[in-house]
Amino acid sequence: MRLVVVGGVAAGTKAAARARRVNPHLKIVVYQEEPEPSISECGLPYLLSGTVEGRRRLVARTPQEFARSGIRVLVRHRVEELEPDRKRLVVRDLFTGATFEDRYDRLILATGARAKPLAVEGSHLEGVFNLRFLTDADRILDHLRRHRPSRALVVGGGYVGLEVAENLRLLGMEVTLVQRPERVATAYDPEISRRIEDHLREHGVEVRTSAEVEEFRGAGRVREALVSGERVRAELVVAGVGIEPETTLARRAGARIGTTGAVWTDRHQRTSLPEVWAAGDCVQTRNRITGEPAWVPLGDTANQMGRVAGTNAALGEDVEEFPGVLGTGIFKVFDLAAGKTGLSEQEAKRAGLEAVAAGIESRSRAGYYPGAGRVLLKLVAEKGSGRLLGAQALGPGADKLTDVCATALWGGLSCSDLVNLDLAYAPPYGPVLSPVIQAATVLQRRLSQPPK
Amino acid sequence: MRLVVVGGVAAGTKAAARARRVNPHLKIVVYQEEPEPSISECGLPYLLSGTVEGRRRLVARTPQEFARSGIRVLVRHRVEELEPDRKRLVVRDLFTGATFEDRYDRLILATGARAKPLAVEGSHLEGVFNLRFLTDADRILDHLRRHRPSRALVVGGGYVGLEVAENLRLLGMEVTLVQRPERVATAYDPEISRRIEDHLREHGVEVRTSAEVEEFRGAGRVREALVSGERVRAELVVAGVGIEPETTLARRAGARIGTTGAVWTDRHQRTSLPEVWAAGDCVQTRNRITGEPAWVPLGDTANQMGRVAGTNAALGEDVEEFPGVLGTGIFKVFDLAAGKTGLSEQEAKRAGLEAVAAGIESRSRAGYYPGAGRVLLKLVAEKGSGRLLGAQALGPGADKLTDVCATALWGGLSCSDLVNLDLAYAPPYGPVLSPVIQAATVLQRRLSQPPK
Repeated sequence: MRLVVVGGVAAGTKAAARARRVNPHLKIVVYQEEPEPSISECGLPYLLSGTVEGRRRLVARTPQEFARSGIRVLVRHRVEELEPDRKRLVVRDLFTGATFEDRYDRLILATGARAKPLAVEGSHLEGVFNLRFLTDADRILDHLRRHRPSRALVVGGGYVGLEVAENLRLLGMEVTLVQRPERVATAYDPEISRRIEDHLREHGVEVRTSAEVEEFRGAGRVREALVSGERVRAELVVAGVGIEPETTLARRAGARIGTTGAVWTDRHQRTSLPEVWAAGDCVQTRNRITGEPAWVPLGDTANQMGRVAGTNAALGEDVEEFPGVLGTGIFKVFDLAAGKTGLSEQEAKRAGLEAVAAGIESRSRAGYYPGAGRVLLKLVAEKGSGRLLGAQALGPGADKLTDVCATALWGGLSCSDLVNLDLAYAPPYGPVLSPVIQAATVLQRRLSQPPK
Repeated sequence: MRLVVVGGVAAGTKAAARARRVNPHLKIVVYQEEPEPSISECGLPYLLSGTVEGRRRLVARTPQEFARSGIRVLVRHRVEELEPDRKRLVVRDLFTGATFEDRYDRLILATGARAKPLAVEGSHLEGVFNLRFLTDADRILDHLRRHRPSRALVVGGGYVGLEVAENLRLLGMEVTLVQRPERVATAYDPEISRRIEDHLREHGVEVRTSAEVEEFRGAGRVREALVSGERVRAELVVAGVGIEPETTLARRAGARIGTTGAVWTDRHQRTSLPEVWAAGDCVQTRNRITGEPAWVPLGDTANQMGRVAGTNAALGEDVEEFPGVLGTGIFKVFDLAAGKTGLSEQEAKRAGLEAVAAGIESRSRAGYYPGAGRVLLKLVAEKGSGRLLGAQALGPGADKLTDVCATALWGGLSCSDLVNLDLAYAPPYGPVLSPVIQAATVLQRRLSQPPK
């Protein structure tokens, strides 16, 4: 029995490893286009500043290490065709350029996501980069070493853009961040975005929102950009304007594509093709709060989906189920942590839910204990039922507050449950009543009041 | 309408403040035996080392501040009698020694807990202290200033004993910790206790378990102790051998006492006496996992109970409910955080539950991100149902892991829920799959296997 996995980053390698554990008799082959498998892509921004020392640290397992557990990983190999009827693949060896045929009994698609192209004139210039793969980071690092740019332009104010802005600033560069929407981190509510922008500015990043990059200019190498009609010097450009699911192979093979544009699967990660499962950034899942299809390309989710796909594909049975996501995420920018789970107030209203919200400011430790910082927590709940819909946290301990709220969402808890939650208290770890309890208390009051 | 609150620390002041908010027309009087109300007692150990600078920082609100929100707080006043039939109190003014009568329409008992007496010969000697109230800390600080002891003996290896040992060590003292049971932190499983003991020893604390303090000796002032037959020099002794509910007044008034020895209330914090509610460390509640009566005297729980009692007493109606506790707690000792929620493996077995456990070691950050530390997480679940029963966490981020598991317990989640939990991931905040998910994955495998 031969299991082929297409894609060797988070979901693909996790699926292969899991399949190996579940079924020791499988032959397992992983095809990976990039030169290394099992890359921790979330660490790429930190490689730029040297916060993470050495690219080798981001390679979780080498092909040799996979081989030791009986998983054959072929890097620089692109699967170009998939014929589900004949269970046949066409694979291109990117070293030699030659193609060959392979066959499978079961297949897992883990083709991931690719950077959205930057549709700007001059994007071909030297010094204009995406940051999606380790090879992108290699190219940026090479550019940094050779040209020692002092002014950088970061395009995009999502997670990647913000992290890249920080890491370039840590190198001492002057950094301008250009964001087309009217604020950064648009998954968050506006008052949270504002605070993130303030923090960026306090750390010397020039933030330009509602701004458009119109052109890159330079003689071979980028020298400046035209941003909403204004010339901005830029000797390095890193674009993080979003990613999109890599579904070329799946589409060509006739797999059903979901409404989000990502590959459709059932809850067992089975695609519409026989004996083909899918996992990771190329796959559509379900938002547990709205019940709607969702595409949430994140490393932890990819690992979890990979585990489910790996188990089920290895056994050829619907053993495990992936229950959907909450859209939980977190990022750090300079000294600020910003975490979110579930829906923002705006998202809840857009989803047609009657949402009530409460934001509080509290401390990350008991007020009298040294080192206490200010933390903000905003909770969103459904009017009437009081069901928690989402949370956003900002400041020290935002990771803890986000995870507590994510777990509460997972358990379907309501605001009144949160008020009496029995959380861990000691002075070094929080105020006597957790910000979660404090915010829930305010929100509960608001839920029981008629709107003004 | 006159509301009297007996006790002015966490539960009492919270109840009073909440009653004021809910019912602006109440007359509210708080009687408090100690000279200050609203003390953050959890901060007391940190006062000894100067980590918390100045006792004033531990007084959350003064009587003057309470007065401004229309709450009369009378300190150094002890309520000595309670006649529920006549709704009458006898109060002793500890300044003058005189008693007077007061009446109430509704009453909240928040008499707290007192330190268990140390039944050791020589406990009366100068230099032998409890650490329960701010006045105890005052006395210890005075002793430190006047006698500059260099050797301290801490009796008791629970939260308070461990925190005191750390704080005395931070003053440069030689510290011996004596614990009667065979290990410290007995609420945790043995392998966790061992690590805590190792950590204490690494920080220069002499830990003596299965040891008994038999006598304190000295001429007026303590000079040495007899510990299991051996003489140990000690110029300062701090005992933290546990606390017990202060129920003298409640018992004398005929209130029902629970099986744990604390005051019985219903879920609305009503005692068996008419128009008398109770909250905080003097009250028995319910363990949500076992369903059994529980007495868990902790500051956060006291605040939550106080809120419920305050609302219900203010309105004279059963509006809010206190749903019980999980027994969640955390403490810091030197650089180690140890958190726990629900049942330990030992406790689960003692409660007659068929428990399966899994402990893992993981990282507090992505492995490649600087500053990652090792963290241990142990999960306990019920065989068959897979229902989570408890968690213990040790190391950096133990507070987060404990709170996530506490929230999962609150929501009645099972091990298979935890495996796919959507938690917040970014390299500075954890490994790609949270230790909770990692441990649940191992535990799930163990749950589905027949016992060896």
